[in-house]
Amino acid sequence: MTNAAAVPSWATEDTLADLSEGEVLARIFPRLPQADTELLGPGDDAAVLSAADGRFVVTCDMMIQGPDFRLAWSTPHDLGWKAAATNLSDVAAMGARPTALVVAIAAPPSTPISVILGIADGLRDGCEALAPGCGVVGGDLSAADALTLSITAFGDLEGRPPVLRSGARPGDVVAHAGRLGDAGIGLGLLFRFGVDEQGVPSREQADLLKDRHGALVAAQLAPVPPINLGPVAAAAGATAMLDVSDGLAIDAGRLARASGVGIDFDSTALGDNRELALGGGEDHGLLATFPPHSSLPEGFRRLGAVTAEAGIVLVDGEPHTQGGWDPYRGWDGQAG
Amino acid sequence: MTNAAAVPSWATEDTLADLSEGEVLARIFPRLPQADTELLGPGDDAAVLSAADGRFVVTCDMMIQGPDFRLAWSTPHDLGWKAAATNLSDVAAMGARPTALVVAIAAPPSTPISVILGIADGLRDGCEALAPGCGVVGGDLSAADALTLSITAFGDLEGRPPVLRSGARPGDVVAHAGRLGDAGIGLGLLFRFGVDEQGVPSREQADLLKDRHGALVAAQLAPVPPINLGPVAAAAGATAMLDVSDGLAIDAGRLARASGVGIDFDSTALGDNRELALGGGEDHGLLATFPPHSSLPEGFRRLGAVTAEAGIVLVDGEPHTQGGWDPYRGWDGQAG
Repeated sequence: MTNAAAVPSWATEDTLADLSEGEVLARIFPRLPQADTELLGPGDDAAVLSAADGRFVVTCDMMIQGPDFRLAWSTPHDLGWKAAATNLSDVAAMGARPTALVVAIAAPPSTPISVILGIADGLRDGCEALAPGCGVVGGDLSAADALTLSITAFGDLEGRPPVLRSGARPGDVVAHAGRLGDAGIGLGLLFRFGVDEQGVPSREQADLLKDRHGALVAAQLAPVPPINLGPVAAAAGATAMLDVSDGLAIDAGRLARASGVGIDFDSTALGDNRELALGGGEDHGLLATFPPHSSLPEGFRRLGAVTAEAGIVLVDGEPHTQGGWDPYRGWDGQAG
Repeated sequence: MTNAAAVPSWATEDTLADLSEGEVLARIFPRLPQADTELLGPGDDAAVLSAADGRFVVTCDMMIQGPDFRLAWSTPHDLGWKAAATNLSDVAAMGARPTALVVAIAAPPSTPISVILGIADGLRDGCEALAPGCGVVGGDLSAADALTLSITAFGDLEGRPPVLRSGARPGDVVAHAGRLGDAGIGLGLLFRFGVDEQGVPSREQADLLKDRHGALVAAQLAPVPPINLGPVAAAAGATAMLDVSDGLAIDAGRLARASGVGIDFDSTALGDNRELALGGGEDHGLLATFPPHSSLPEGFRRLGAVTAEAGIVLVDGEPHTQGGWDPYRGWDGQAG
């Protein structure tokens, strides 16, 4: 099924089409971490997880080759890591401790098995680094033209109420944990320098870029969001929280509208490149509000204050005009 | 973005590219059923569900245009219904009552909004008909070339142990609830008669087929599996159970290997077309084993007995050679 000239390094390797679904799964499962909450793992029609406090948190997100990643830039390990990281971050943003993932993967039949195993390794390493005890409890394998990862993640609120977007009150402190703008710089570098002379995403060019700007490119391809700080913020009394996925200004606007408040950033706290801090997406930091005069948990940094103006984002008291990412409007469809 | 000549009936309709993600979600959510277990629904980083007995069942499945469905044959409502039905069936096969779904949808930017709303309506009607009280608690929208639905489903074991594939014992009764072979006949009819003169899937030909063989085509496109009988079988003491998705022989083989037993079907119980009953997939009935001399719950029919031969499927005591479906080997990739 594979074209030896086009994929020389894979020519002697098994592809998905060479193996049965059962054989692929048998190679994947031993690489995946087991969840501490797992009562019944993969292999039956469904898994069974414990939910100690009688509730569970659930979120889902899909990553698709083209709109969401290019295989010329991301390694399979990057893909698994980022799929874990972004979903764990949504769980953490509720103030919950991530407990488990289920993972559906669709891939072309010509995909080398090493790609799927690399994704599995990235899922494992991402879970182990970002949320120890969180494991993969089930999944699904399908065929598709574009490599697709669909993740559902679960979390444990450990008896606490969830931290919603809607709880911020005027006078609260606005704080952030994690990186701000680095993933956006990394993506900008990849679009500008990670391409060949025709502008097509290039593995060779991306590798050169990684040699020179490894940390920034990694912030985009394999982010390290502060997952553990979600439950910490909840325990410290956070009044509202969300995951900063589409850029600080857009996500602050969501929190502001949900809470019926304004979010006023201090420009001095946004660093030298204010537009990048406000507009750069995919850092997956945590934006949270805390009661007035709170001492912030370690890892959070004050960015401003909650005001009474309903539903708007300000910088130094002046309204900020938003820009940002929309999955349908922003899509260029290039597979890469 | 749309080609008016190619899609005349959609030319004046909003597409996903015309609307923001928020606007699309605002149109979808009011159509979706709320889950009885929902503590916090869509709109935050994650949902929160109750898990009354301190556990929850979870399964996932992806449906992709081409390998899993053709838009020339399935209506958007069919897609939503089938996505619900197949996932609810995996929950039921554990002996659990389905409680909730999360739904990730990826679609081309040119997709008319009516397609997405039709899927939402199918999800709602499928949940309401097959598992009242089960709702959609969250989701994700992405861009992709191929329409893709990724569903994760949850269930409540209501204090019972899960019914595994591995619990069958020699002497147990083998029983089945639901249809057997109809979905396979429906698919065969579609492949043979639901195409134009060039063999390309055709909506017009499929509509003619639905006029004449509506029930068989519907068994394939919008199945009605016996979801409620999963918990009933569990309460009646089922020793093993699974969802028959890939055909009776293949799925009986899975149960046989997991339990270390043989499954011996009585040919008289398999009906006139034994090969179709054994080989036709996608009916999503429930194959279960019950202790010897059990009186079967209403809706289950005796198909044979569990024997001591490890890991094999028999008919009237003779080994049965399996055939069936593999997602990578069986794929033809035609989009339709």
